[in-house]
Amino acid sequence: MNYTIRPAREADMPAVHRLITELAIYEKEPDAVEVTVEQLREDGFGPNPKFQCFVADSGMGVDGMALVYPRYSTWKGPALHLEDLIVTEPARGSGIGSALLTEVIRHAQHTGAGRVSWEVLDWNEPAIRFYKSRGARILRDWDVVQLDREGIDQYLKTYAGI
Amino acid sequence: MNYTIRPAREADMPAVHRLITELAIYEKEPDAVEVTVEQLREDGFGPNPKFQCFVADSGMGVDGMALVYPRYSTWKGPALHLEDLIVTEPARGSGIGSALLTEVIRHAQHTGAGRVSWEVLDWNEPAIRFYKSRGARILRDWDVVQLDREGIDQYLKTYAGI
Repeated sequence: MNYTIRPAREADMPAVHRLITELAIYEKEPDAVEVTVEQLREDGFGPNPKFQCFVADSGMGVDGMALVYPRYSTWKGPALHLEDLIVTEPARGSGIGSALLTEVIRHAQHTGAGRVSWEVLDWNEPAIRFYKSRGARILRDWDVVQLDREGIDQYLKTYAGI
Repeated sequence: MNYTIRPAREADMPAVHRLITELAIYEKEPDAVEVTVEQLREDGFGPNPKFQCFVADSGMGVDGMALVYPRYSTWKGPALHLEDLIVTEPARGSGIGSALLTEVIRHAQHTGAGRVSWEVLDWNEPAIRFYKSRGARILRDWDVVQLDREGIDQYLKTYAGI
């Protein structure tokens, strides 16, 4: 399979949105995607983009994407976070995921990031094996904590009288 | 105990750095802090700050801090990440941690974040209980993955010939 890894353009956002939805279904949360194609266009492009995105383009369409943004480690300084690395089901096993990850690591080095971080579901053994084989550490003793919009509103009502 | 929660100034960075080091010792990684006071000054202030920081100021010094920056969720859109919430040992139990967290949640709402995220060590039961009591979800099935600077260099040497 031939493909090119390149920075995403605004016109790729419908394809990127389809990949995001495909991953949400795989992760058993099909209704969790609130972001729209239009919002991806607004947030990812323009003078202060909130993320950078790379896509795998086969010439016939987009078969994979990696979405990243900067973070800040109080131990290591500027870091890069890989929010999503998605390859469409029919294109798996073709090396696209690996090529996208390499592009992300290259981008990290290029931007001076002292760390690349991401998150993985602890039952996703194929992904964990792949990441380990590439030298990444899986921090099994760290848990992710989240407060979503409803929780934010509820919190402020209860504890800040807002 | 009387204290004010306020945005950090450059002059607070030595105190903030001491708190970062204190937390690294608590988390059993005393040598992990590579960031310097000078780098915190450079990265947190100026035209494009890489983080925002809030401190608890007792008038006699800084007893706690919260350090945040934007993230991007492909499900929820713009989000806020709480990298560190640290209260110095002698000041614990005084409500400072809670006041700092409230300031962070307020900042999230103010900046339109659809989610606040952070990470917690799975053996840090007092912290987990506190976060849960405030409405946060602990995602026990998500693991954090990291590739540090050495891993980045090694990766690119092996897989990209750089």
